[in-house]
Amino acid sequence: MLPFANDYARGAHPKVLQHLVDTNLDAQPGYGTDKYTASAIAKIQAACGIDDADVYFISGGTQTNAIVISNLLADDEGVVAVDTGHIALHEAGSIEYTGHKVLTVPQVDGKLTAGNLQTYVDDFYADENHGQMVAPGLVYISYPTEGGTLYSKQELTELAETCHANQLPLFIDGARLGYGLASPEADLTLPEIAALCDVFYIGGTKVGALCGEAVVFTKHNTPKRFVTKIKRQGALLAKGRLCGVQFDALFTDNLYLDISRHAIDLAMQLKQALTDKGYEFYIDSPTNQQFIVVDSAQLKALSQSVDYSFWEKIDETHTAIRLATSWSTTQAELDELIAIL
Amino acid sequence: MLPFANDYARGAHPKVLQHLVDTNLDAQPGYGTDKYTASAIAKIQAACGIDDADVYFISGGTQTNAIVISNLLADDEGVVAVDTGHIALHEAGSIEYTGHKVLTVPQVDGKLTAGNLQTYVDDFYADENHGQMVAPGLVYISYPTEGGTLYSKQELTELAETCHANQLPLFIDGARLGYGLASPEADLTLPEIAALCDVFYIGGTKVGALCGEAVVFTKHNTPKRFVTKIKRQGALLAKGRLCGVQFDALFTDNLYLDISRHAIDLAMQLKQALTDKGYEFYIDSPTNQQFIVVDSAQLKALSQSVDYSFWEKIDETHTAIRLATSWSTTQAELDELIAIL
Amino acid sequence: MLPFANDYARGAHPKVLQHLVDTNLDAQPGYGTDKYTASAIAKIQAACGIDDADVYFISGGTQTNAIVISNLLADDEGVVAVDTGHIALHEAGSIEYTGHKVLTVPQVDGKLTAGNLQTYVDDFYADENHGQMVAPGLVYISYPTEGGTLYSKQELTELAETCHANQLPLFIDGARLGYGLASPEADLTLPEIAALCDVFYIGGTKVGALCGEAVVFTKHNTPKRFVTKIKRQGALLAKGRLCGVQFDALFTDNLYLDISRHAIDLAMQLKQALTDKGYEFYIDSPTNQQFIVVDSAQLKALSQSVDYSFWEKIDETHTAIRLATSWSTTQAELDELIAIL
Amino acid sequence: MLPFANDYARGAHPKVLQHLVDTNLDAQPGYGTDKYTASAIAKIQAACGIDDADVYFISGGTQTNAIVISNLLADDEGVVAVDTGHIALHEAGSIEYTGHKVLTVPQVDGKLTAGNLQTYVDDFYADENHGQMVAPGLVYISYPTEGGTLYSKQELTELAETCHANQLPLFIDGARLGYGLASPEADLTLPEIAALCDVFYIGGTKVGALCGEAVVFTKHNTPKRFVTKIKRQGALLAKGRLCGVQFDALFTDNLYLDISRHAIDLAMQLKQALTDKGYEFYIDSPTNQQFIVVDSAQLKALSQSVDYSFWEKIDETHTAIRLATSWSTTQAELDELIAIL
Repeated sequence: MLPFANDYARGAHPKVLQHLVDTNLDAQPGYGTDKYTASAIAKIQAACGIDDADVYFISGGTQTNAIVISNLLADDEGVVAVDTGHIALHEAGSIEYTGHKVLTVPQVDGKLTAGNLQTYVDDFYADENHGQMVAPGLVYISYPTEGGTLYSKQELTELAETCHANQLPLFIDGARLGYGLASPEADLTLPEIAALCDVFYIGGTKVGALCGEAVVFTKHNTPKRFVTKIKRQGALLAKGRLCGVQFDALFTDNLYLDISRHAIDLAMQLKQALTDKGYEFYIDSPTNQQFIVVDSAQLKALSQSVDYSFWEKIDETHTAIRLATSWSTTQAELDELIAIL
Repeated sequence: MLPFANDYARGAHPKVLQHLVDTNLDAQPGYGTDKYTASAIAKIQAACGIDDADVYFISGGTQTNAIVISNLLADDEGVVAVDTGHIALHEAGSIEYTGHKVLTVPQVDGKLTAGNLQTYVDDFYADENHGQMVAPGLVYISYPTEGGTLYSKQELTELAETCHANQLPLFIDGARLGYGLASPEADLTLPEIAALCDVFYIGGTKVGALCGEAVVFTKHNTPKRFVTKIKRQGALLAKGRLCGVQFDALFTDNLYLDISRHAIDLAMQLKQALTDKGYEFYIDSPTNQQFIVVDSAQLKALSQSVDYSFWEKIDETHTAIRLATSWSTTQAELDELIAIL
Repeated sequence: MLPFANDYARGAHPKVLQHLVDTNLDAQPGYGTDKYTASAIAKIQAACGIDDADVYFISGGTQTNAIVISNLLADDEGVVAVDTGHIALHEAGSIEYTGHKVLTVPQVDGKLTAGNLQTYVDDFYADENHGQMVAPGLVYISYPTEGGTLYSKQELTELAETCHANQLPLFIDGARLGYGLASPEADLTLPEIAALCDVFYIGGTKVGALCGEAVVFTKHNTPKRFVTKIKRQGALLAKGRLCGVQFDALFTDNLYLDISRHAIDLAMQLKQALTDKGYEFYIDSPTNQQFIVVDSAQLKALSQSVDYSFWEKIDETHTAIRLATSWSTTQAELDELIAIL
Repeated sequence: MLPFANDYARGAHPKVLQHLVDTNLDAQPGYGTDKYTASAIAKIQAACGIDDADVYFISGGTQTNAIVISNLLADDEGVVAVDTGHIALHEAGSIEYTGHKVLTVPQVDGKLTAGNLQTYVDDFYADENHGQMVAPGLVYISYPTEGGTLYSKQELTELAETCHANQLPLFIDGARLGYGLASPEADLTLPEIAALCDVFYIGGTKVGALCGEAVVFTKHNTPKRFVTKIKRQGALLAKGRLCGVQFDALFTDNLYLDISRHAIDLAMQLKQALTDKGYEFYIDSPTNQQFIVVDSAQLKALSQSVDYSFWEKIDETHTAIRLATSWSTTQAELDELIAIL
């Protein structure tokens, strides 16, 4: 089967794995105090252009979202997200598990617009009963979004300004950050993203690592005793080196962006092929996830040789599916897929 | 000022208060094990037509909702409600505080329709990723709804059947239950409501009591060690008699329904007067809350002599407001209000 | 049966009830914004000698403890209490329900000593692994304690100094505060207690009210948006007047202390009688709860005519029991009890 | 520095790492549905002698404890542990974070005795107020214990019988399970442990893996929709293969026990050397962690060349420290350590 179902079907990029092998028997202190983690932090700080950014590693995205969000919100606040946001739908209630409500705003191309955010906030405070409602306390967006779309520099700048004008920190879920930055449509760099938001995470699990996400607090705004809080929420790895070593490799010699660019190059070839063959796109995505609508016959045919993801049922005979490339997709696999389509 | 802002502006119905006075110095055991609570339970069982219904008293509605919902849901389940549901909007995140998500479905006249519920459930299970989503585990509705509307017997029957067909218990928030049952449009009785749902509460705070709601589990479905769970969530009154005595009075000689009917009689007079005077209704309500749209000039005039509730801002110059009657509204007050309108 | 089991067996002091009757039909705004609540707050501020203390009313003690403690602790902190503390034992895990650990220190006469607290804190920070442990973030004591004992002014002053030297706010559970202040052994006044702690509550449920506790923040240290947080935890009464009116009466003409003194006078008569008759005291209490050890025969005899509370099983044939007086105990009841003992 | 501070200072056993390398580019489905996870589960079932045991992989121990415990307890129940239990002390309140209390019982050589457990349960139910207390709902022990001691077969059998007689499931934290099973003093096998308890976990992080613990439900007692619950608590890895592959290697050709035995062989040599040199043992441990008391001069000397762990301050001049071997400790390192001691 051709592996286009998602971007986490294989292990780690060979250079990442090699670094784990090379450092394996070097005895290091635990809980993220090892030298590889320190090195990874320094490289991420440099890549973000913020020398004193605070960087922490957490093993997966759901946990990262829950820990960052719950520790930045006051007890009576909720997090604002678009209705298609990952935290609103596909994390099994992990935000509510921390006691907080996800406050949803209608998406526009998968994105939260500055205007919709301001309207939400204005409506909230215009309601005379807002003292009995959950106040917005943080804004969550994904870059790229769950549907693979991207905020332009202007969109993100306006959104960030709106956040800050309303004293709302901005948190960017970068589970697929590399695939966003490497898109031909991206007009934002890593330092620009870091500068515009208050906290974001650089996804490793979907971009070359076995596991791990790097949380970056960009404004000296790390919650107090954050490591203890990570422990309390169950996410402090004894062998913190596991994430540290991997991110140390990912941020050496531009590996993170290079492997992201590879995935995007293949995704753009795929998009062109889908266009040429007349497929209907469900979402127009400039990143590594491509979404198309297929009918039952097409779906049955594809199922024979391609691993794809179910995305949404459109009607009795049509289904939206996702085809994703990743750092590990080969040109040969893509060519084979295109031949089948 | 004429008190039409809400239905909780005064203390208790005189007969309720008198019962507190009469029983005041009778020493009784605590935590709801007193004889007045036992008597109230028996009267409520009789009024519901279920001799062995389990009945508990909790001091307020938000707490009642949180305790019932969180203890009927499995850890990974959420509660289904319409998007205008009280628990979805105006309880300050008290359901999320218990770790559970409120799953919202679009309202129709403030109500959850059987069809919309089934669609929600079908869509949920049709999603191949539902294992990473919050499963519906309980259905919450209000009778009357937050906007004062009522489910017909047919509507509630269909909804209950849909709930049960999907193994979803049905919980009815009856904060204003009396005002629903007493409406000329109501075609449901208390026993019918009790029989159709799995658990509901009979609101006292807004219908003649100083505080207190009576939770009724109708199907031998009380969570194990429920009193301990009430205690754990902070809601077990040492002087359980406070609620017991009041409900004992409310369910003596039909008081609960009689005082509800009084409120409804006045509300219907008000509705007729509003109609006659050409007011625009924001919601067509057959119960004690009437919702109208007024312009800025009208609002300013009203503010001089009437306590009303802000409901929603319509546009720059129009506002929806609520005028509510209650067990304590007098004919004189209503006449004065109508004269002003 | 003679009602000596506890101090919450009867309703409200007649003057408290009369105030409810007198104010019953005065329409007032909800959620604690009524004029009676405002009046009660002003009287409590005056009684505490802190004109700008923040005062809130919550319906019961367990809920009050949970709300105050959880909102004063940082997420990763716990509350320090003696091992016999109410929150450590008899509140059904209501503190853990809020996500926080109760950190226990051995009691001395039911009390937390300044020395034991300092040792606890020192040991905590001496542990090199304390970053993976729950840090103390607040100190909880009861006045009187669960066993009826009292902190002297010197003891409380030393404890408060130790708290503040360690940046630990001090919270006093005053469920039976009146019975402590009225004790002949008390050398602390209400203003002194208010000045020494950071937050405390004045118990109403056990001292003359149907329900209600008055939380007093004495150092401009109320958590932000505290009313919303109370709502979120389910404890905001729509008819906030219920508590406001009662405390308005309790703090008029010194009623709170007068009725407490009555209970203490009777308790001291009881203590003398128990001493005279040679009963073994389980705890030497100077307040309204008296604890004695009785054998099986005595217990059986008592059970015929006296309501007492089981306190602790001592051995196969001996049991510690509690006999409590309250504002409602009469001299006649006490005389009858003494005659039986 | 000689690495004897703990058993998680190095990466993975070379065979475990090699399996990650060998399987790295094999595309597999996510979330634990890959073939390596299936293979690991089958091997663990075989090793436990329970063909239909349910096995799940979670990345770390704190998280595993929190997820297992919170999902086996009813809402109003707590988990019983000895006062030195890891969950009671060193997991930063992660159990309380889930809303549950840790109920502590005095340890005996780090262990929970059947007698102490029965006494705890008896005392609980003898207390007439137990309805307002947290009921024991699950028993947690560690094998080996936090101090390295072991339950004998008789001790564990008696404890299990006591648990079951009281309807309390028994959960064994096996963070260092291999080092227990491989001890010369162990008279329990993996199948015996699996048969005696209701759920346990086989620690990977400290026994040869980069991360990962294998939870084994032995009695068809997995909580419903457990994977969704793991997701909700943030612990479901997209690349579930990361744990699956590692445990697949650890349970191939007896690797898990072989590498454990290596660590124990070295630990017993160390213990003998410490005995010979007259060191005072803080705990008499038959497993890979050795605890000794050293004075300030000894500690200073050791610090020059040995990484040890602080355990507890004994007095001004004495400290208890831990020296741990692991799968990765070499004979050369041990010899060097012994030469220094």
